[in-house]
Amino acid sequence: MYSIVLQILFLISINCTVIINSYPENECNLDNKLVDEIQSYKNVTKQIIDKIVSGGFGTKMYEDYSKFIDTFGARLAGSKALEKAIDHMVNLTRQNGLNDVTTEEVDIPYWQRIYESANMFEPYLKKISILGLGTSVSTPAEGIKAEAIVIKSFDELEKTDENKIKGKIVVFDPPFVSYGETVVYRSLGASKASRKGAVATLVRSITPFSIYSLHTGAQDYENNVTKIPTAAITHEDADLFRRLQNLGEKIVLKIHMSYAMSRKISRNTIIDLKGKESPEKQVIVSGHIDSWDVGQGAMDDGGGMMISWFVPVILNILKLKPRRTIRAILWTAEEPGLIGAEAYLTKHINETSNINFIMESDEGTFKPLGLDVAGSTNARCIIAEVLKLFTPIDKMKESEYPGSDMTLFVQKGIPGASLLNENERYFWFHHSEGDTMNVQNQEDVVACAAFWAAFSYVIADLSQDIPRQ
Amino acid sequence: MYSIVLQILFLISINCTVIINSYPENECNLDNKLVDEIQSYKNVTKQIIDKIVSGGFGTKMYEDYSKFIDTFGARLAGSKALEKAIDHMVNLTRQNGLNDVTTEEVDIPYWQRIYESANMFEPYLKKISILGLGTSVSTPAEGIKAEAIVIKSFDELEKTDENKIKGKIVVFDPPFVSYGETVVYRSLGASKASRKGAVATLVRSITPFSIYSLHTGAQDYENNVTKIPTAAITHEDADLFRRLQNLGEKIVLKIHMSYAMSRKISRNTIIDLKGKESPEKQVIVSGHIDSWDVGQGAMDDGGGMMISWFVPVILNILKLKPRRTIRAILWTAEEPGLIGAEAYLTKHINETSNINFIMESDEGTFKPLGLDVAGSTNARCIIAEVLKLFTPIDKMKESEYPGSDMTLFVQKGIPGASLLNENERYFWFHHSEGDTMNVQNQEDVVACAAFWAAFSYVIADLSQDIPRQ
Ligand SMILES: [Zn+2]
Ligand SMILES: [Zn+2]
Repeated sequence: MYSIVLQILFLISINCTVIINSYPENECNLDNKLVDEIQSYKNVTKQIIDKIVSGGFGTKMYEDYSKFIDTFGARLAGSKALEKAIDHMVNLTRQNGLNDVTTEEVDIPYWQRIYESANMFEPYLKKISILGLGTSVSTPAEGIKAEAIVIKSFDELEKTDENKIKGKIVVFDPPFVSYGETVVYRSLGASKASRKGAVATLVRSITPFSIYSLHTGAQDYENNVTKIPTAAITHEDADLFRRLQNLGEKIVLKIHMSYAMSRKISRNTIIDLKGKESPEKQVIVSGHIDSWDVGQGAMDDGGGMMISWFVPVILNILKLKPRRTIRAILWTAEEPGLIGAEAYLTKHINETSNINFIMESDEGTFKPLGLDVAGSTNARCIIAEVLKLFTPIDKMKESEYPGSDMTLFVQKGIPGASLLNENERYFWFHHSEGDTMNVQNQEDVVACAAFWAAFSYVIADLSQDIPRQ
Repeated sequence: MYSIVLQILFLISINCTVIINSYPENECNLDNKLVDEIQSYKNVTKQIIDKIVSGGFGTKMYEDYSKFIDTFGARLAGSKALEKAIDHMVNLTRQNGLNDVTTEEVDIPYWQRIYESANMFEPYLKKISILGLGTSVSTPAEGIKAEAIVIKSFDELEKTDENKIKGKIVVFDPPFVSYGETVVYRSLGASKASRKGAVATLVRSITPFSIYSLHTGAQDYENNVTKIPTAAITHEDADLFRRLQNLGEKIVLKIHMSYAMSRKISRNTIIDLKGKESPEKQVIVSGHIDSWDVGQGAMDDGGGMMISWFVPVILNILKLKPRRTIRAILWTAEEPGLIGAEAYLTKHINETSNINFIMESDEGTFKPLGLDVAGSTNARCIIAEVLKLFTPIDKMKESEYPGSDMTLFVQKGIPGASLLNENERYFWFHHSEGDTMNVQNQEDVVACAAFWAAFSYVIADLSQDIPRQ
């Protein structure tokens, strides 16, 4: 499983550096009939959007969302808060008149933060804030006191004499380039430093901007490597260590870290609005309901989960049944490594040919811009034509893997899209105490929800399937 | 003393809302000879700036600054770190060849943070990060457990029935309008809530932007008021409490806060470059060397202190002795309420008529823009004419009280100016763990230093004094 997770992390990394492609107009030769059919959805999409934006349904959804976030707070995979949150969403679905809701059990890892602290002892005493990375092992009870060495890159690590690493705490301070490019120091740093004899690693938080902010996230130990404790530190402290090292100072740190690892049962939540013509065919809309244990998981991925949950619910309320089934999935345990999505795919492997299109929102629900699409040219041409219904929310980006949970499906050749939105500051808050309802804006979330529902409806109702490769 | 401090806080508040005035060209009738004289400084100002920006002196100053900040870290009034930092600056002055450096003792309060923690107990358990405000009293050892009430304004507090406040923890959540307007909830909130029977106050951090950031700062208990513990909380938690209160939830908090209060001796540092013609006349350039106990005090006010210290030092190195004495003052204990500046003024009260002009940099050393000036129209006309030498660093703002320590001098009719700079994000970092070298940019700090030194030189050397009212 680890190898798959690592592969996925790598794929996500690549995805993040793909440039926004222009609209594939030139390559498109859509049948006129299809174009006419798509454009005939103008009225119904307008109706859906109006009901949500101006008809009170969006406001209600936002209130439910805000209350959900403030009631359950952080929803770490394995925690009771997450399971209560799942129960709540199941009930909320029924309360909204949609009874086709089920959960499917998933065996997941439960990595629990117990205690963390760190101090610099030399050149002087200073408290260092740390935030352990998912799956980190604990330090011995008496902590680890060791000299630190600041390393900028894996390349530099490779070139550094093993004697200089052995017994040290390696501080990785890569400059933030992009999430995809820089996150490898979080996800793989401990293993790489351990192979050279390091006793722990601290990683400069993966964010472009910091107000002494700590950002956690997943990391994985490679096979046959001594597992060493690993935590995020702030830009401020990483850069202080770098400057002290440049001044020739000896840096001595002492860290205490304590975590518990066990396994728990969690659940994926599946909400169906059954199709009126081809109920066996599915358009999946999704987000993950779990979060890290800091902040409230409002942005990652409360917003994406909520607008996806809302799609079958609001279409059902509006009595708009598309041809195909719209299935909302609230993934569990995305953060520890797409565990819920993987379990779902394993269980539903025989249905993959029936998945017409998969959608995921997991990169923010700020002002919506359009979609990030994976699929054949034909698929993209249809998506682009549908997007014309939503001007100005009509930007289209092309990515090989435009999402996280979705990646597993796209790898099987299923076309899909994730929500493009004005998320320039996404990583300022990501996996930190700053991921709370404060970063959300009601108007933007409602606009995302309206677009998400109306777009899904059209795709699920079109006479033609979205073609595969 | 408290009343003076409060008055000053109020004055600073007003200052912050003054609009940038246009350049007083219309009102100015400067003597042609004076205009010619001012413009004759073009070469020497260019020379000073070139030496600092391109001649290596600015780079060296920045390295000294960075090393100073990283060596001493936070320099709380009363702490050993501050006294060591003062010793260091005295030695650094001498090492740079300027021996006219003295310190003057000041009796200051030493408010020391020992321990702080807070939790929300109802409606569910959640850790709440808090940061006590300067001079806050401690809670009893067993802490304070009480229901919270969220109050938006003093007006709302006034109108709220005393029974609803009594025994409660008042959470002030004023929206950030401007520092001056909003800071009153930090500085006066505890006293006002205490008068209505509150047992503690928590104040939404005074900042326009937060990533779960805590911002401390001074507060004062009014006379005859029961002193209750008071701390800053994040926007995120304040807004969570507000939303929970709106949902009708009962909020119960438990806080533990422990501080020690004593008195210490600290020192103002005075560095003179004696004037060659009228050494008794002074142009003061200043910044404060103390900081709060979070972050590194790099921005507030390490940068301002350093560029002010640098003025006599670099002019001495460049063998540029102006007519009047340039006195750099590194104020101590600004943060607890302008204690160092007040002591200086009391001690030097007979010299005030000799202070030709006072300058202060305490609002950031980001990209320099010009000056914020207090003084008569005549004074401002001269300053404006001098600023023409520094285009594009020639913006002029007019304020009644353009600074903090400087306020005491301006109140005595002494004209002065503080550094205008691109400090739009100043309050994002102010009095928080985020105030570190990370927010500084070498090029900008060097540009500030060059402007600061060259401008001071011209003012100190002009044949004419800066006129008072
Ligand atoms: Zn996510
Ligand atoms: Zn200051």
